[in-house]
Amino acid sequence: VHVPITRLDQLVPSAAGEIPRVVVAAGDDPDVIRALASAADAGCARPILVADQARVDCILKELGLDPRLFQVHQESDSRTAAARAVSMVRSGEAHILMKGRIGTSDFMRAILHRERGLVPSGGLLSHVAVFQVPEYPRLLLIADAAIIPAPGVKEKIAIIENLLPVAHALGLDRPRVALLAAVEKVNSDMSATLDAAQIAQMAQRGQIEGVLVDGPLALDVAVSPECAEAKNLGGPVAGQADVLIVPDIEAGNVLYKSLTQLARAKVAAMVTGATAPIVLTSRADDDESKYLSLLLAGWVAQRRASKK
Amino acid sequence: VHVPITRLDQLVPSAAGEIPRVVVAAGDDPDVIRALASAADAGCARPILVADQARVDCILKELGLDPRLFQVHQESDSRTAAARAVSMVRSGEAHILMKGRIGTSDFMRAILHRERGLVPSGGLLSHVAVFQVPEYPRLLLIADAAIIPAPGVKEKIAIIENLLPVAHALGLDRPRVALLAAVEKVNSDMSATLDAAQIAQMAQRGQIEGVLVDGPLALDVAVSPECAEAKNLGGPVAGQADVLIVPDIEAGNVLYKSLTQLARAKVAAMVTGATAPIVLTSRADDDESKYLSLLLAGWVAQRRASKK
Repeated sequence: VHVPITRLDQLVPSAAGEIPRVVVAAGDDPDVIRALASAADAGCARPILVADQARVDCILKELGLDPRLFQVHQESDSRTAAARAVSMVRSGEAHILMKGRIGTSDFMRAILHRERGLVPSGGLLSHVAVFQVPEYPRLLLIADAAIIPAPGVKEKIAIIENLLPVAHALGLDRPRVALLAAVEKVNSDMSATLDAAQIAQMAQRGQIEGVLVDGPLALDVAVSPECAEAKNLGGPVAGQADVLIVPDIEAGNVLYKSLTQLARAKVAAMVTGATAPIVLTSRADDDESKYLSLLLAGWVAQRRASKK
Repeated sequence: VHVPITRLDQLVPSAAGEIPRVVVAAGDDPDVIRALASAADAGCARPILVADQARVDCILKELGLDPRLFQVHQESDSRTAAARAVSMVRSGEAHILMKGRIGTSDFMRAILHRERGLVPSGGLLSHVAVFQVPEYPRLLLIADAAIIPAPGVKEKIAIIENLLPVAHALGLDRPRVALLAAVEKVNSDMSATLDAAQIAQMAQRGQIEGVLVDGPLALDVAVSPECAEAKNLGGPVAGQADVLIVPDIEAGNVLYKSLTQLARAKVAAMVTGATAPIVLTSRADDDESKYLSLLLAGWVAQRRASKK
């Protein structure tokens, strides 16, 4: 891919590749089933539910959905369902893992299992959200707004490295990464600026490959060429960032919510750092973002498969 | 005022009151002079510049502005200019203080001077920004996105109390205040949620008067009735916040910039906690927000005067 994707609804699977198989841990969840049905209808996903068959039948009936869209593997215990779903991804029977009616910590435990999980030793899971904002001419990747509450330098670098396969899949061969802070000057009283300065310099030294990194940058300087110019900030990132690394989960959450609630943005999100895309939607996500998250995961999975 | 203001351009001074006099410390600044000229033209401000007369003349000539709009008090030294401007506010010769071509720390020092400053003993200066967001049905006050980098509980309470006169001036008799965090559950690993819980409970106990306070709330729950309902969060604040208290300057800055850059919001801002409104615009602010900030300060000053 060389022309970057600019709209999330462009993320439909290539006809040349296989339709991605999505396995849901404890898939007897009406919201998840509805999103999967939309994706399956559109030819973008083949859903597999590891779940209680009777509950699934009941939900399908209630929603008036065609049972033939769903393959069901009977399992009533949600933790066992998570372990089985993870093992199906390990074996290649499924390309994408999705969270169903199971607590996030139980779901994560199955993914992080040392021998039978999906995270390489020493790896870290993080979250990336891809926004389509009417006021911005390109997709905007934001990380980590959901998993790591207060990342240090090491974690922020892992967050960048984890999202690279997603950026590449979206046609960003060398994504422009802005390390956000409240100011552009490095200030020893503001730790976000210190982290940003260290990481930017490490990138300069070639210690983070495949990206253009700059920071600290405030959001306006990161996304507006006019603001970057007004503040005399040159370089390849200022004014045209593809990726925003937020200083912590509070800033990330506020940015995420302001874009979806107040800037009419559409969003797709996934968990990165595992050997396969993971979809972890929450009650707060609307139906469209659940659907778009499935498209994103499928898109990334297909490109990963074609590289092998 | 009992009907809340919903648009920033409604903040034109009442004909019954005096047109607010704005004194600028080191007013020989082209951006500031341009904003003042617009406000003066619209009958919303009477500008007084404590500044170098020759430089002012030169700027006025360059911008093609009528010198009769500006009263100039000759002073070439910027720190002395700040002290003189502050003293004009103390004496009632001016209603509003504005920062010109002077460093923020020098400007602040004059305001915070123990004997000849504008801050009551034990007081704290903080920042409030008033946003008009196309996607939100009311004005949204956000504090503190600019002055206090990492406020604790005591500072957050001062931030709320400082902005009350602004909220009242905007017709919010009992503003709905949301203490933002990334989640709604109190979590001992996330200090923003701990601060929010303490402050909300203090408000319950009547320790913060004149406001309805709730938190921790994520931004979506604070501003969207649908999200509040989906997460089962009732109360008078969730879904209809007038005021958002951000956990720290990083979250505040990101929110501020996302609204102005990506959500087509208009903004007016001022410094609160002093005996008079203070306008402190930065290079990053566009002309319209400088103009609207002058309107806001004038509006607050007029209402303060009518209460005396």
